[in-house]
Amino acid sequence: MFVYADHAATTKMSDAALKAYTMTAEEVYGNPSSLHSAGQRAKEVLTACRERIASVLGADAREIYFTSGGSESDNQAILSAAYAGKKKGKCKLVSTAIEHHAVFHTLNKLKKEGFEVVLLPVGENGIVSVSDVEAALGDDVALVSVMLANNEIGTIQPVEAIGALCKARGILFHTDAVQAVGHIPVQVDAIGCDYLALSAHKFGGPKGVGALYVRRGAPLSSLIEGGAQERGKRAGTEDLPAIAAMTAALEASVSDMDAASALLKHLQDKLIAGLETIPHCALNGDRTRRLPGNVSFCFEGIEGESLLLLLDEKGICASSGSACTSGSLDPSHVLLAIGRVHDVAHGSLRLTLGTDNTEAQIDYTIAAVKEVVDYLRNMSPVWRDLREGRRSYIL
Amino acid sequence: MFVYADHAATTKMSDAALKAYTMTAEEVYGNPSSLHSAGQRAKEVLTACRERIASVLGADAREIYFTSGGSESDNQAILSAAYAGKKKGKCKLVSTAIEHHAVFHTLNKLKKEGFEVVLLPVGENGIVSVSDVEAALGDDVALVSVMLANNEIGTIQPVEAIGALCKARGILFHTDAVQAVGHIPVQVDAIGCDYLALSAHKFGGPKGVGALYVRRGAPLSSLIEGGAQERGKRAGTEDLPAIAAMTAALEASVSDMDAASALLKHLQDKLIAGLETIPHCALNGDRTRRLPGNVSFCFEGIEGESLLLLLDEKGICASSGSACTSGSLDPSHVLLAIGRVHDVAHGSLRLTLGTDNTEAQIDYTIAAVKEVVDYLRNMSPVWRDLREGRRSYIL
Repeated sequence: MFVYADHAATTKMSDAALKAYTMTAEEVYGNPSSLHSAGQRAKEVLTACRERIASVLGADAREIYFTSGGSESDNQAILSAAYAGKKKGKCKLVSTAIEHHAVFHTLNKLKKEGFEVVLLPVGENGIVSVSDVEAALGDDVALVSVMLANNEIGTIQPVEAIGALCKARGILFHTDAVQAVGHIPVQVDAIGCDYLALSAHKFGGPKGVGALYVRRGAPLSSLIEGGAQERGKRAGTEDLPAIAAMTAALEASVSDMDAASALLKHLQDKLIAGLETIPHCALNGDRTRRLPGNVSFCFEGIEGESLLLLLDEKGICASSGSACTSGSLDPSHVLLAIGRVHDVAHGSLRLTLGTDNTEAQIDYTIAAVKEVVDYLRNMSPVWRDLREGRRSYIL
Repeated sequence: MFVYADHAATTKMSDAALKAYTMTAEEVYGNPSSLHSAGQRAKEVLTACRERIASVLGADAREIYFTSGGSESDNQAILSAAYAGKKKGKCKLVSTAIEHHAVFHTLNKLKKEGFEVVLLPVGENGIVSVSDVEAALGDDVALVSVMLANNEIGTIQPVEAIGALCKARGILFHTDAVQAVGHIPVQVDAIGCDYLALSAHKFGGPKGVGALYVRRGAPLSSLIEGGAQERGKRAGTEDLPAIAAMTAALEASVSDMDAASALLKHLQDKLIAGLETIPHCALNGDRTRRLPGNVSFCFEGIEGESLLLLLDEKGICASSGSACTSGSLDPSHVLLAIGRVHDVAHGSLRLTLGTDNTEAQIDYTIAAVKEVVDYLRNMSPVWRDLREGRRSYIL
């Protein structure tokens, strides 16, 4: 049986998205900056897509900037706010210990340039404390950046409360909503964010395209200089087929959200319940405040990479954490942040479900994980030490 | 009759490219960073595309970095070389007066940061003098950036000679080859460049994807921080369907290049000869050292924008210059650089042909331009002044 359970890494383009891509590539191929009718037709489609995406997010079309994806959006938002803050003497950036590397490494770059970066801890449940955020705020803060939902453990952060705190103090607030948009309701005014990053390939849209929401009046500087596209804030010929496909995918995700969410929660509950029967394991992240479809576990006494490879042999595509950091030997910074010790963090498994997954696939996956965990533990000297009392169980 | 004669602004995706896009999106949708077989299959395709593109350019696969397009590639190359140079006390950047805005505005940004930017003039034929480049070189030069072929007037620059000068002095050399790749032979070792930017949608590939060639050992810093994609130099999930489509389009362009070039030169010669029968006009750019298919003219006594709009009514998609700067009221910096005065530069027309254009379309276009120029001149008070001797003709 083939089970694709790595939807947080990337999703297959939906039929609606692929159709929008090909139709646009074939019929609306003009450059939106060209004055002739082929260009103007492209510009009209671009404008319509911007309005439709704005509408889904509860934003104004003028607040939507198309980018090459979530990473670019995160980089541009953070750099824009940081450099604007610096000009006013605000050189502190507040974020969390569990952000995606697109945020984390951009903050690191700014740290090297002299910014103070405060990474707030999260609780064992993977949620940042609103009072910790509040305590970190001050006149010297240029930006608060807290992700909407975590890519590894699926935890949904209290962004509305954080947004309200920031708004009350006139502090800019960015949220990396890459894992959330298309999966849970996302409204920029409810969140109260000044910037929001999204990526199309996480919700059935194409890779290589995303958007950045920028509240009117919030500072925005170019990351890519050149032509005057995107009101002078993002140079490069607009990728209209991909933008049209992203728009189609987003609208489809949002209109199907209730049904998809119910199905995914059902499959998620079943998978979690099944995997929890394995001894010495722990669910990562909050049990209820998590993305529908996200299942993340640590299993004591095994290596996550071996687990993945053996599951792959059984046709199951899973992840140990973030795809963007696979290949790295370091344990996930997210799992360390929720208090998993190194050995335990190494034994992680992330299964992220989509609406193409079935009940039968969940049954198959539970049985496969049980079998593989058992197999690996039987081969593991660490597990023998644990079983024979020479080491103590942690989980 | 419908005539798309704006191929330098953007091309329609070729059938081969669109097929590669849809096949990859449907069948190889995994994230290349994922360890499971769906991810590894994507990684294999990514590796193969990198090798195939490298092979076309005479480069090594490790020297190819995928980006979101030509503008991003130009930005990353220039910033990387400039900041690396600055660390060694080299703060001078040498370029030309006719670069694309992706280069020009990046240089401007660096100028504001304290770099010295030297923009060399070009001759009336739109070609930079190799001895001017040589005279500008010194120990303080961090980078020379000269485009391979101009986007407005199609002039091909003596990049091989410039590359040799730079190489002999150990100075980094970048060439914006966005208009050249897929249209004329481009080999990185013949050019002797350290960086080369290309964009897929200029040769029948998709929008939103491009590549940056970086010679081994040349400095490269990230423009977009995040995951470790592209050997840590360009974060963001790789847009594999677009990369596969770009690869297919590039290979097709190169294998068809001789035939396409012969056809385009024939159509170009015919179009130039036809338009030159219009009185008081001038061909912009060099007559022989120009891209096949590029036809750029200035017509005295008319406004280019009116000319475009009336041609558009006749079904002809043309441009006054660069699509990226349309909407701007300033005359083209390229036309000013080749010595056109403001009034004349405003009367510009760029027709850029593709292999989908026909002999009949050229005949139709010549007749249409003649008719429209005549019509506009008859309505123009400036033209009446010229005709009646109250002003002197320039062209």
